[in-house]
Amino acid sequence: MKIEILCTGDEILTGKTVNTNYSYIARRFTDNALQVSWGTTVGDDRESLILAFQQASQRADAVIVNGGLGPTVDDLSQEVAAYAAGVQLELHDAWAERLKAYYESRGRQMPQNNIKQAMLPAGCEFIDNPVGTACGFAVTINQARFFFTPGVPHEMRRMIDDQILPRILQLSGLTVVTRLKRFHSFGIGESRADQLLKDIEALASDHSVKLGFQSHFPQLETKLAAIGKDQRTLDTVLAPLEAKVRECLGNFILCEDDQTLEGTIAEALASVNGTLATIEMTTGGSISQRLTGNGSNPALVTSTVSQDLQQLAQTTGLNTATLDSNGAKVLAEALRTRSGASHALVSLMAPDDADDSRNFGADVFIAIASPTGTKVRTSRLIGGRKWVAMGATELSLDCLRRYLLGLPVDEKIDFEQH
Amino acid sequence: MKIEILCTGDEILTGKTVNTNYSYIARRFTDNALQVSWGTTVGDDRESLILAFQQASQRADAVIVNGGLGPTVDDLSQEVAAYAAGVQLELHDAWAERLKAYYESRGRQMPQNNIKQAMLPAGCEFIDNPVGTACGFAVTINQARFFFTPGVPHEMRRMIDDQILPRILQLSGLTVVTRLKRFHSFGIGESRADQLLKDIEALASDHSVKLGFQSHFPQLETKLAAIGKDQRTLDTVLAPLEAKVRECLGNFILCEDDQTLEGTIAEALASVNGTLATIEMTTGGSISQRLTGNGSNPALVTSTVSQDLQQLAQTTGLNTATLDSNGAKVLAEALRTRSGASHALVSLMAPDDADDSRNFGADVFIAIASPTGTKVRTSRLIGGRKWVAMGATELSLDCLRRYLLGLPVDEKIDFEQH
Repeated sequence: MKIEILCTGDEILTGKTVNTNYSYIARRFTDNALQVSWGTTVGDDRESLILAFQQASQRADAVIVNGGLGPTVDDLSQEVAAYAAGVQLELHDAWAERLKAYYESRGRQMPQNNIKQAMLPAGCEFIDNPVGTACGFAVTINQARFFFTPGVPHEMRRMIDDQILPRILQLSGLTVVTRLKRFHSFGIGESRADQLLKDIEALASDHSVKLGFQSHFPQLETKLAAIGKDQRTLDTVLAPLEAKVRECLGNFILCEDDQTLEGTIAEALASVNGTLATIEMTTGGSISQRLTGNGSNPALVTSTVSQDLQQLAQTTGLNTATLDSNGAKVLAEALRTRSGASHALVSLMAPDDADDSRNFGADVFIAIASPTGTKVRTSRLIGGRKWVAMGATELSLDCLRRYLLGLPVDEKIDFEQH
Repeated sequence: MKIEILCTGDEILTGKTVNTNYSYIARRFTDNALQVSWGTTVGDDRESLILAFQQASQRADAVIVNGGLGPTVDDLSQEVAAYAAGVQLELHDAWAERLKAYYESRGRQMPQNNIKQAMLPAGCEFIDNPVGTACGFAVTINQARFFFTPGVPHEMRRMIDDQILPRILQLSGLTVVTRLKRFHSFGIGESRADQLLKDIEALASDHSVKLGFQSHFPQLETKLAAIGKDQRTLDTVLAPLEAKVRECLGNFILCEDDQTLEGTIAEALASVNGTLATIEMTTGGSISQRLTGNGSNPALVTSTVSQDLQQLAQTTGLNTATLDSNGAKVLAEALRTRSGASHALVSLMAPDDADDSRNFGADVFIAIASPTGTKVRTSRLIGGRKWVAMGATELSLDCLRRYLLGLPVDEKIDFEQH
């Protein structure tokens, strides 16, 4: 089945907005064992839209059109869809009522031009939008089924997931269910993970699972896209593959599916009613920022960011004699006592005395203290200032996760000098 | 002149990689008064590539092809270009020599398959790549001139700017030069800026300047794209428009062109041999991270990130009685004395006691101390936790800029409650 994505709008065409809608739609299809074969971008221009619809209708079985469903005159998707399908636009009463009710519930009268959003091609299939004023719809043009979706990202995502994907799966003739199992890891590079897992697809004897990777630098996402006749079959087919991934990537797996490293740390800390104080050097506040997310994490009581030991001592009153693993240990224990937090994380760094380049590196000294004792981790990272700071941030957070979960904090990662 | 962008590669087609190359190329053309009329994305698939080349060659005058110039078997751009242009591939001796020299200079022998990168369509126009192993080239297919560029972003960007744009401008028949003048501001929303500057294009009587905006939330970029017969003409035409932008956006302009807010602060601080200590509350380390960039800013001596006043006092030993503008003032002065820094920035926040929603807000108290005195700024920000944290970060940095440049720190911004 040939599927195309057709994105409309001057903001996308001119590059003013990066087209993340395209990548979301394509990824969701790929994750569901469907293949996208072509992408088109055109502006809010009648002639281009007509030509794009015609050409897509001759290449594809299904076309997802994104954007152009708004209330203003430059939103042309309904009009061009009706023209290309050879029908008239007509008022969709139920959606018109919903629009009016939507505005009334907000104490406003519906602007006159919003009624345009309820003018749909005659005979089209209506597709609900529970979170916005642009409904979707589907029409057939030549040999292809066209699905129209709104340009507002969260409205588009909801419609793709809840409405479009099931319809496309049905159209594809596959009477199947799909599942995407995801593992997030840190410390194993994509090429080594690929090598470690190269035989894994064979564990599903019917070739119903596809292995994939996505880099979210410095984390790696390992994906198992499974397809089967029902959920029970997927459970059975996926079980040995999931076990194999857990075996191969081991302690390097940070979390699975929608979980995050930060969330895993927060949960582990909460399970012991813990609180945390941190000191970071030369990672510029990244550790603190990662732990606080959008500015609030009640378990993180305080963070200090410093460029050198002397200033750190001056600000915190905590004396650290040496920039090494013992210095980190002493500092973590002193920080824990001083702050009153149950746990303290200290991440120190001794950067090379050199200009930034791909050979620039730093020694990193991480210490974590709690009532049960202190653990230290040293590492040499290389790859330029930016990468060293990112690597030290991720390594510090991963050590904290490992510490809280009782895992070894000193397993070597692929990204450090051995 | 009709220009198209044709992006190739499975990573882009499947959405694994967000297509930022497309938006870069389109934006650079738009910035230079050239219009992109169509975008196409296809995978590493011979049949799709041939069809895409044919269709583009019938619609456009110029086509930028991105990607597919690598050494591996799935890189098909040269081969399909030769096929579509009706010529053979042949070895480009000079590029083959450059490739060999490139590897030799790194003490390695060139892998056998890299010679593929010097196999170009017979009679093509060679386009240099000074920073990588994939050279560019141009061929004519039907009515359109096709320009082939590498997929590696920094190689693509350099080739577009230095090699492709001048060629397209020449092809377009315009014997002109272009310039993009940019202003970065904070505090004025896009719609108000549009309103303030709505008559500005008329100041260039020959319609040779186009006004545009790009949101880099919460900053706004205001762009003047000028086109003229030579640089002197551009100077003359742009001067009154630049003056008008500076007049209308006033102190809200953070910096111009390639400058950044962080860079402006660093420069102003360096000009007085200044150093800085910061305390931030509920912005989670963002202020520190922005100031340190990739982990290093010798002028930033120390930062403390805290969730509440009590913990702050416990960690720093600095007592703050009240969460208000006076508390911020007292704290900034104490921090300056304690840290030994010439300047201290304190950003405190009293968030609403409410769940996160679009109505969630916070009172922000910012104080900046130096030997010349202390200034405070209070503000109420609304719009949800994430936006409030971003807004407080930007406002704190902007206040520091204003303080250092001797500008008023208390001009109201569009994003706060008045």
